[in-house]
Amino acid sequence: MHVVMLLYPGFDQLDLTGPFEVMGRFPEMDIHLVWKNLDLVKDNLGLQLSPTKTFFDCPQADILFVPGGPGQLSLIQDQDVLDFLSKQAAGASWVTSVCTGSLVLAAAGLLSGYRATCHWLSINQLSLFGAIPVSERVVRDRNRVTGAGVTSGIDFALTFCAELFGEDRARRVQLAMEYDPAAPFHDGSPARADPHIVEAVREASKEFQKLREEVALSVSKKIKARQKL
Amino acid sequence: MHVVMLLYPGFDQLDLTGPFEVMGRFPEMDIHLVWKNLDLVKDNLGLQLSPTKTFFDCPQADILFVPGGPGQLSLIQDQDVLDFLSKQAAGASWVTSVCTGSLVLAAAGLLSGYRATCHWLSINQLSLFGAIPVSERVVRDRNRVTGAGVTSGIDFALTFCAELFGEDRARRVQLAMEYDPAAPFHDGSPARADPHIVEAVREASKEFQKLREEVALSVSKKIKARQKL
Repeated sequence: MHVVMLLYPGFDQLDLTGPFEVMGRFPEMDIHLVWKNLDLVKDNLGLQLSPTKTFFDCPQADILFVPGGPGQLSLIQDQDVLDFLSKQAAGASWVTSVCTGSLVLAAAGLLSGYRATCHWLSINQLSLFGAIPVSERVVRDRNRVTGAGVTSGIDFALTFCAELFGEDRARRVQLAMEYDPAAPFHDGSPARADPHIVEAVREASKEFQKLREEVALSVSKKIKARQKL
Repeated sequence: MHVVMLLYPGFDQLDLTGPFEVMGRFPEMDIHLVWKNLDLVKDNLGLQLSPTKTFFDCPQADILFVPGGPGQLSLIQDQDVLDFLSKQAAGASWVTSVCTGSLVLAAAGLLSGYRATCHWLSINQLSLFGAIPVSERVVRDRNRVTGAGVTSGIDFALTFCAELFGEDRARRVQLAMEYDPAAPFHDGSPARADPHIVEAVREASKEFQKLREEVALSVSKKIKARQKL
């Protein structure tokens, strides 16, 4: 079972390393980390990972996976990437993402008419691309499975692997990873966090989120213009 | 603030990438990934990360961090590594680990008389090196802070950063990472998991755990023999 995980400059590594940890524990999963070339890829906080395949020698994915992160802005404007994802998705059994990775899938036209989730700060942008935003931690609609922000990748992957390999095996992996989370604070989601914490995070990311929205809007307009031709 | 995180072949990447994600979001933290050389380091499931410093050009750590993983067996028999850790720890403000990383700290003599935690399958081995095993998710004793198995790294790092930078900032990071965990099953710890799940994980890891115990015992005997000289 080929799992194709997209790497890209400025991705958010935990979006990917969480699911990698879970999926890697199922011997059926042959995971490929894919980018345009084999140079090291640096995440938004500076962690450098090595791709194992390029767009050119990557096998057909059974499971396609796209992480999120600030680099997503460039990605949705990069036709080579969107083409690669569309082509892979056409032959994949599952098309999946974590965090703003769903915006990349959506910009590639892969979530039109699908319920999907995303990082809480960016989830509204899904509708620009015809997806139906759902504020849940893990959302499955037919063969699309999306996770919310960053850390949701662990919940996404355990849920997904339970679907593929049965609950018993997923439960064993959860125990082997000692995934008995004890978040020190109650501020993990905007619904539960104290308003002053939500406000502080919104304020700190305001400029970047404005840019993110502008780019999403501009890309979605181009897509719509192309569809009219 | 220099954070020195040890990389090594066969480490468990999520032990490190969880804390990296949290700590990397505090601009005060200058994180160095350190190994003997700058070659790519492969984790136990095949993820390849790039070190940023070697033992020879690594700055003095303010925070020393050691992840766990099956490679820990070789590490506790590697005097160069133990010497590097001892030397770094002597000048560090904080000495920390996740998962079986605490066994490495312990083998370097850095947890003697300290309360510490570890992955549930290996926690008993801490006492071979004079540490006091405590089955909690995050354990702090003076300037030693240890996390339990794999996924505990996120809880460890948020707790630790709240201590360093105040709760308010840690809560913002928790929200930015959307850390509102929704573990799909209740089997995250041996205390809460169904007995047949615990038994299955114990059985699957039996041989490796036997080896792990033998190595720990042999290394601890050598340390004691050296101390008597």
